[in-house]
Amino acid sequence: MAKDLKEFIRNVPDFPKRGIVFRDITTLIGNGDKFKHVIDEFTKRYKQKHIDYIVSVESRGFIFGSALAYTLGAGLVPVRKKGKLPYDTHSATYNLEYGQDTLEIHKDAFEKGKKILILDDLLATGGTTCAAIDLVEKLGGEPVEAAFVIELEFLKGRDKIKNIPVFSLIKYDKE
Amino acid sequence: MAKDLKEFIRNVPDFPKRGIVFRDITTLIGNGDKFKHVIDEFTKRYKQKHIDYIVSVESRGFIFGSALAYTLGAGLVPVRKKGKLPYDTHSATYNLEYGQDTLEIHKDAFEKGKKILILDDLLATGGTTCAAIDLVEKLGGEPVEAAFVIELEFLKGRDKIKNIPVFSLIKYDKE
Repeated sequence: MAKDLKEFIRNVPDFPKRGIVFRDITTLIGNGDKFKHVIDEFTKRYKQKHIDYIVSVESRGFIFGSALAYTLGAGLVPVRKKGKLPYDTHSATYNLEYGQDTLEIHKDAFEKGKKILILDDLLATGGTTCAAIDLVEKLGGEPVEAAFVIELEFLKGRDKIKNIPVFSLIKYDKE
Repeated sequence: MAKDLKEFIRNVPDFPKRGIVFRDITTLIGNGDKFKHVIDEFTKRYKQKHIDYIVSVESRGFIFGSALAYTLGAGLVPVRKKGKLPYDTHSATYNLEYGQDTLEIHKDAFEKGKKILILDDLLATGGTTCAAIDLVEKLGGEPVEAAFVIELEFLKGRDKIKNIPVFSLIKYDKE
């Protein structure tokens, strides 16, 4: 299944910069059958897990998070770049290759003790996901799992995500 | 129905700047039942229209576009800010209150003659939507309708969108 899905990911060399092979999901989501298949796979995995909310990071994360929120009947909670959310927020700062970035979540996004699935398109170094977990925990949520469409295994992001299970549909073991 | 949904939109005064009342959808999408209801309303409207692709603008547009792509079995085509899409793109520039912005679409996102639904969270002045329609037409697509969760009627964006029908679920007739 994963192998089949991989055929629908486009490999774009030297994006966003020289030496990086970008795994482009637009060719996957542009295919209605394959997009549905991806969402159905996640739905099968999580439908018995009583997920209350899906937390997704802008903006590609929204693409998978919202369709899964729909199939699970869960709420969707957006984690966004600094300054984008209009109400009171918690923030978490994480390191990029050069410099830092800050993500935010609404303070009233969900109540304490709620079961949270973190869903994003890509697991690379894991920095974004750790920031998202940090935000979920600041609100007293219980992160059940961190799930990804694509995992770049050679970047070892999985090792950075402590205490919660990690699941990915499509894995790349080298660039 | 729209009245009921309006209760789940949070009004945030003075965001993003003084004098603007921001209509915050995070309280709507954070409610699994209400989010599902919104998507089901759009699904009812479009399921017999043979939509091939949904074109949505980043990033809040993705939240509604992807769930609807799932229910309709359509492909999702993202329209993004300049430089975000990795492959060959067409671009369209539109005017903001101060300055301009540029949106892009992948040149190979869909084939000529395909039926396209443009779906976004908000219809304000219509500039973004006109740029999205322009991009769809550059690819030879047939825009069937432009649909929105929220329409700010007093900004008259609807008058700017020529030749294709406009539909919105929730309307505000004044700020």
